[in-house]
Amino acid sequence: MEHTFDATDELCINTIRTLSMDAVQKANSGHPGTPMALAPVVEVLFTRFLKHNPANPHWPDRDRFILSCGHASMLLYSILHLTGYDLDLDDLKEFRQWGSRTPGHPEWDHTPGVEITTGPLGQGCAASVGMALAETHLAATFNRPGHRVVDHRTWVLCSDGDLMEGVASEAASLAAHLGLGKLVWIWDDNRITIEGDTDLSFSEDVGRRFSAYGWRVLRLDDVNDLDALAAVLDEAGSTSDRPTLIAARSHIAWGAPNKQDTAAAHGAPLGDDEIRAAKRSYGWPEDETFLVPDEVADRCRQIDRGMADEADWARRMVLWQQQHPDLAKEFARRLAGGLPAGWDDDLPQAPADADPMATRAASGKALNALSKNMPELVGGSADLAPSNKTLITSSGDLTASDPAQRNLRFGIREHGMAAVLNGMSLHGGIRPFGGTFLVFADYMRPSIRLAALMKLPVIYVFTHDSIWVGEDGPTHQPVEHLASLRAVPGLAVVRPADLNETSAAWRVAVERREGPTALILTRQKLPVLQGTVDHASDGVARGAYVVHGEGGSPDVVLLATGSEVSLAGGAAEILSENGVAARVVSMPSWELFRAQPARYREQILPPGVPRVAVEAGVAMGWWEWLGAHGMMIGIDGYGASAPGAVVAERYGFTAEAVAERTLRFVKG
Amino acid sequence: MEHTFDATDELCINTIRTLSMDAVQKANSGHPGTPMALAPVVEVLFTRFLKHNPANPHWPDRDRFILSCGHASMLLYSILHLTGYDLDLDDLKEFRQWGSRTPGHPEWDHTPGVEITTGPLGQGCAASVGMALAETHLAATFNRPGHRVVDHRTWVLCSDGDLMEGVASEAASLAAHLGLGKLVWIWDDNRITIEGDTDLSFSEDVGRRFSAYGWRVLRLDDVNDLDALAAVLDEAGSTSDRPTLIAARSHIAWGAPNKQDTAAAHGAPLGDDEIRAAKRSYGWPEDETFLVPDEVADRCRQIDRGMADEADWARRMVLWQQQHPDLAKEFARRLAGGLPAGWDDDLPQAPADADPMATRAASGKALNALSKNMPELVGGSADLAPSNKTLITSSGDLTASDPAQRNLRFGIREHGMAAVLNGMSLHGGIRPFGGTFLVFADYMRPSIRLAALMKLPVIYVFTHDSIWVGEDGPTHQPVEHLASLRAVPGLAVVRPADLNETSAAWRVAVERREGPTALILTRQKLPVLQGTVDHASDGVARGAYVVHGEGGSPDVVLLATGSEVSLAGGAAEILSENGVAARVVSMPSWELFRAQPARYREQILPPGVPRVAVEAGVAMGWWEWLGAHGMMIGIDGYGASAPGAVVAERYGFTAEAVAERTLRFVKG
Repeated sequence: MEHTFDATDELCINTIRTLSMDAVQKANSGHPGTPMALAPVVEVLFTRFLKHNPANPHWPDRDRFILSCGHASMLLYSILHLTGYDLDLDDLKEFRQWGSRTPGHPEWDHTPGVEITTGPLGQGCAASVGMALAETHLAATFNRPGHRVVDHRTWVLCSDGDLMEGVASEAASLAAHLGLGKLVWIWDDNRITIEGDTDLSFSEDVGRRFSAYGWRVLRLDDVNDLDALAAVLDEAGSTSDRPTLIAARSHIAWGAPNKQDTAAAHGAPLGDDEIRAAKRSYGWPEDETFLVPDEVADRCRQIDRGMADEADWARRMVLWQQQHPDLAKEFARRLAGGLPAGWDDDLPQAPADADPMATRAASGKALNALSKNMPELVGGSADLAPSNKTLITSSGDLTASDPAQRNLRFGIREHGMAAVLNGMSLHGGIRPFGGTFLVFADYMRPSIRLAALMKLPVIYVFTHDSIWVGEDGPTHQPVEHLASLRAVPGLAVVRPADLNETSAAWRVAVERREGPTALILTRQKLPVLQGTVDHASDGVARGAYVVHGEGGSPDVVLLATGSEVSLAGGAAEILSENGVAARVVSMPSWELFRAQPARYREQILPPGVPRVAVEAGVAMGWWEWLGAHGMMIGIDGYGASAPGAVVAERYGFTAEAVAERTLRFVKG
Repeated sequence: MEHTFDATDELCINTIRTLSMDAVQKANSGHPGTPMALAPVVEVLFTRFLKHNPANPHWPDRDRFILSCGHASMLLYSILHLTGYDLDLDDLKEFRQWGSRTPGHPEWDHTPGVEITTGPLGQGCAASVGMALAETHLAATFNRPGHRVVDHRTWVLCSDGDLMEGVASEAASLAAHLGLGKLVWIWDDNRITIEGDTDLSFSEDVGRRFSAYGWRVLRLDDVNDLDALAAVLDEAGSTSDRPTLIAARSHIAWGAPNKQDTAAAHGAPLGDDEIRAAKRSYGWPEDETFLVPDEVADRCRQIDRGMADEADWARRMVLWQQQHPDLAKEFARRLAGGLPAGWDDDLPQAPADADPMATRAASGKALNALSKNMPELVGGSADLAPSNKTLITSSGDLTASDPAQRNLRFGIREHGMAAVLNGMSLHGGIRPFGGTFLVFADYMRPSIRLAALMKLPVIYVFTHDSIWVGEDGPTHQPVEHLASLRAVPGLAVVRPADLNETSAAWRVAVERREGPTALILTRQKLPVLQGTVDHASDGVARGAYVVHGEGGSPDVVLLATGSEVSLAGGAAEILSENGVAARVVSMPSWELFRAQPARYREQILPPGVPRVAVEAGVAMGWWEWLGAHGMMIGIDGYGASAPGAVVAERYGFTAEAVAERTLRFVKG
């Protein structure tokens, strides 16, 4: 395809540069250098290549654009403004101010046209793999011969820092493995980081590394050479069975006479003098700020092109819909995120005399029951599927050659997995889930935080949740992970006590649209509790409920989660033999319980009755529920390698030991 | 160098295999496949190449060996036993049992010859870079012409999973950048993971990737070809200015007729029948278990060679010591880990009327004051040195060409940094520190956990610790990180309130030998408090102390940390004007305060006096200190992008707002 450029393009590019400089200067905070360097890239990409409709940032078949180096946010805000998104010049003037639509780093669901919250490096790159993967999967699922209703690309702009981060490495390796040919990363090869030149710490051959992953690697010697830039974007946008990396040489703070190619231009305003000098070098009126020449506004505005593209798509959608009405209905449902009728009909339930079962196994059953009715459930494990029980048995592996399948093999890349789940969720049309051992939730934490911050309904399947992991020892036995996950605002942590609670936990996770949910599951078998048979569904949704000793006024309340609930039940029976009436409260989710009315909370935890918490982890946070005079039966250090039951006994997690300590506590 | 092998070597190798199979079978838990595959590698490495003295696992100039794929622990235990470490056959029989010296994954400081706790994949690889780096730095510091008192290699055995993990990628890139020529990773290219064949998820060209980083890449087509194995180890051990990867093709569960090359052999016992069949294939007596033929014991035992090597080193040490007595004294001190006289003499102190200063700046001063007297302080930042204030101004950058310097440029590789710090600490002779923004502590978490589990005295410098970060917005404003770090057993979290407390916090960190310390520091300036001038040193060490309103009996106690202490001080003054006597307790460290006698704790937090906690983060955990009827002034969601003072005001973090809420609380 032929692309021609003229002086107006140069003017557009300089407008992006000067808007960025001016906004950073006005805010007296921000990162001007990268927007100045990469202005040509976004101008050419957004006006010639990106399929988008600024009038409808939610058009499902739009290309996705990700600014992984989120600190260069003014680059994105400038081009969004110029191409016609609902972001006006006054918004740009409010850069980094309270309540503005132009926060310091791009925030999803806050600014029109921003596809993802970025800032923590590597995350945008890695999430882009999830977006491209979602596109591939949905295309394979919904396109039909002669009909391409899902057909878009994912473009990423990223920095040296993004490519140094391990999470991006993991995702890049996976992207090549999955043959994501519509994914393009444009690497801003500016050779500058905060500390100085990249050769302070970065001497690898990035292009060769990506070739080794299996990427197509293209080079652009100068981002200011618009013809070469268009040619390389053209090639990157051409059909490929591999993702594409464009190594694009740029110069940070391009045009700033004293700060170009220096770290000084990275993260601080240029200063008035340097801004004037840079404007002079662009041939720009140096006294003007936030200037958008008319011809720039005309040239950059993409609403007509976008409306036409979307209209064309809509016409094709109609044809497709006529031939495939059920498919179209399902597509609409998936994009809207609604649940299909009867989605939870097949969730397993068990009577109290059922065979004991690990909650990870119950989770596998629940997942498979849901998967039958919810084709949008797509996910897998970071190489622990047989342990996490995350395999959808009715589906094959999602691969480059069969992308319509639903089982993902993430490899031993927990962090990459979590970021990819974010991208899949952001894309829409998919409810992603991912599993690993609970102890390795640590590897995923930066991406979990972003899921919570963005309120993405990602589902985590964390198994092997305590010292009962046993022989694998302290490196594999989580003790602080419940606490550290509960600390994340917006993440719901749910630790079910048996099969019935596990079904209820999955129901909570699926119905929860306002943020991610972490399911915390055992390796070891657990009995099915009498108290969960009728009450788990409502009880888990409320976060805590009575599973034993409902009636009368108890002498003590035992609060427990997960595998410790049946243990507390055993302790309650011993206590009863000793004349102490114990109520056992299963408390699978603090977050859900906190959201209940005070009346319900007091009904479950009657004021004045002494409380004992039993959880095989650190005490951190439990005092919120225990009050000043409660007792915690927890673990204040790390686990140990031995059979699970032995470790549990040594750490005091038997019904007898809990009963004895409780008895002393109540009598003392 | 010529190496010859005979039938006894085969016997040694099969002994490692059968010991591993037998131990896993007896434990009914563990990973037999990799020990069976890699037995030749450890046999040849430990008997021909590794410089070690089984009689003294602490010999400072030994080569380091790291089993990064820690699940293959029986491989390590078998060879340690056979080469003569203090680990007998009964220990092997107790594999994975309570209290044994052969836990499921290798544990440092627990089993002689185990250099590092491994299990979480990627961590051993990444930490090895720290060990090799420590060697390079100490060699450059202590060797003199004609004297090489520090001269050893670091050998790593790692799996596909290790190389899929981003943390290993980060560290590999850094290792090449630093030219760590004595570092060798042997990659077990067995093409099997837990879920099945590696091509489920892993199709990159690993060798080419490592070449791209700048590694020397060697290949070994068959680990069972001992001559080829010796040749490649020989080459790997030869002088190089680059780290070396050996891609070693192996067959998991080698010799097991039905399970070789299958995932079934990865993480479960083989079963008695398959063990017998495998033993038959080795020509082994199939009814014998834990059999060590006499000629194997003789051949493998390395104590004579080790004693001779160490004696030779000791002789050379004496010559060196004679010529460089001061250097030798310093070397001995550094290895023993003692502090030099006057180490803390220069720590900065300030009067109450001093100019306000951010605690990150105070930390930079403290670090530099300590660095003058403590040459063992070596570290840096993950590309945020100018922000973290981690630069040692009297030193240059530690580079391939100048490894005696002390400033490390970790690049934008937080996780890699944390793992490298672990390796440096494990090596000995160095007190490593590393910095980044507090919010990015999430990236480092798996390595922080291992530091705490191993009780390594690593120091973390976490700056930009709250919403006062301001314009960068919620992605850069930690709210849950104090809580999540406090949840880690064995990690001390210290959040000082001003310059005086920052000096005291550094003193705590340096004196603390029993685990890592995280210093939590502000971006924004803070006044120097009257109450810290005389009391910070003792008060910070005790975890909490009174900084305002010592005398009399207070109406309310305000507990605060870091920047919220001066804010609480301001609130106390307003409260005083309103007739409420408030005591302000600075509580920089929960862990240190918990360790105080009850009497001290009650003196600081008098029972019966209402308490209000002020911390710009989630409430999680604070109820431990507040009692049932306290009040928390915290943040229960994420931050926002705006100037720091604006965000703080909007979130209620002003002296006025705190005073008003406290007043209502006390009166209500």
